[in-house]
Amino acid sequence: MATTTTRNGVDVDRLIATIGAIQADPSVATFTFRAESTWDTGGRNRGLIGEFEHAGARTTERPQPFELVGDEPPVLLGTNAGPNAVELVLQALAFCYGVGFVYNAAAKGIDVEELRYEVEGDLDLHRFVGLGGPRAGFSEIRAKGWVRSSNATPQQLEELCQYVQDTSPVRDILADRVPVTTDLVVLD
Amino acid sequence: MATTTTRNGVDVDRLIATIGAIQADPSVATFTFRAESTWDTGGRNRGLIGEFEHAGARTTERPQPFELVGDEPPVLLGTNAGPNAVELVLQALAFCYGVGFVYNAAAKGIDVEELRYEVEGDLDLHRFVGLGGPRAGFSEIRAKGWVRSSNATPQQLEELCQYVQDTSPVRDILADRVPVTTDLVVLD
Repeated sequence: MATTTTRNGVDVDRLIATIGAIQADPSVATFTFRAESTWDTGGRNRGLIGEFEHAGARTTERPQPFELVGDEPPVLLGTNAGPNAVELVLQALAFCYGVGFVYNAAAKGIDVEELRYEVEGDLDLHRFVGLGGPRAGFSEIRAKGWVRSSNATPQQLEELCQYVQDTSPVRDILADRVPVTTDLVVLD
Repeated sequence: MATTTTRNGVDVDRLIATIGAIQADPSVATFTFRAESTWDTGGRNRGLIGEFEHAGARTTERPQPFELVGDEPPVLLGTNAGPNAVELVLQALAFCYGVGFVYNAAAKGIDVEELRYEVEGDLDLHRFVGLGGPRAGFSEIRAKGWVRSSNATPQQLEELCQYVQDTSPVRDILADRVPVTTDLVVLD
């Protein structure tokens, strides 16, 4: 009788099968993700995250896209209708660490009972407002995690934390350079 | 009689006053932003974005934090309850470009009638699943914007697009390296 092995809410059999599928066909590992935004007014924009490409083909996993609102707080001349862009970057790192920790724990037989992260980043607005000075983005990002496990030693959890940092897509995007191209179409 | 100059939904007088305040006291430009996440199950995490620090003091602009859900699509062993972490990074760039374009247009007297962005990024999962190979994060990010203005030339809009790239916090975070520190607390 086939049974499903689930750990931390992760289907471990499918996880192992996915790794096997990538070993058999490297294109299974390739994705192109997307996000759109439409300006509303002032600092407010509406975002949409929907379908993506997997192994060269558009998926049909998301008939309904996710809607997000981005805005600035009053001190940054916004109406506080949503988080701002740099806060979303910090949220992305927290989510990426969460997924990476839990998936890899499941693969290693580690039960996670509780896991949370706090991430913060320091930013100086001089360059954004045209006054030159320090870089436009975060000068530093600090993440802190809290984890509880019933069957892993502190050393195993520390090693897993390091492994997750070494393989985290969002950490890599932040800690190393990504080529970014930007084109503009001027509408009549 | 005092009048408020609003362009593109941006209070231009406050924008100019903010720049003046930064010139008078550089600490006015300093922020520490934050995000938290709590793991739910599998690839699903709940995020919170609330208060931040401005000029060394905690703000009180956000009595209620913003709640976000992060998850993976089924092909990545999730339940599709929200966008994933790398998609949020792309959304952040789109939002950042939107705010940067509109605020700077307002400062320069350019009326923006329509503005939207599409951002995409290519990612290979080999490293995330422990098979080594290419970097864990995006190998490339491509952004495309569409803008309509009633009073700016295409050349002015192209120059503004370049200026926004040069001063965008999120573009800088992606295109250049950010130091990221990560600590773990093991709970009993």
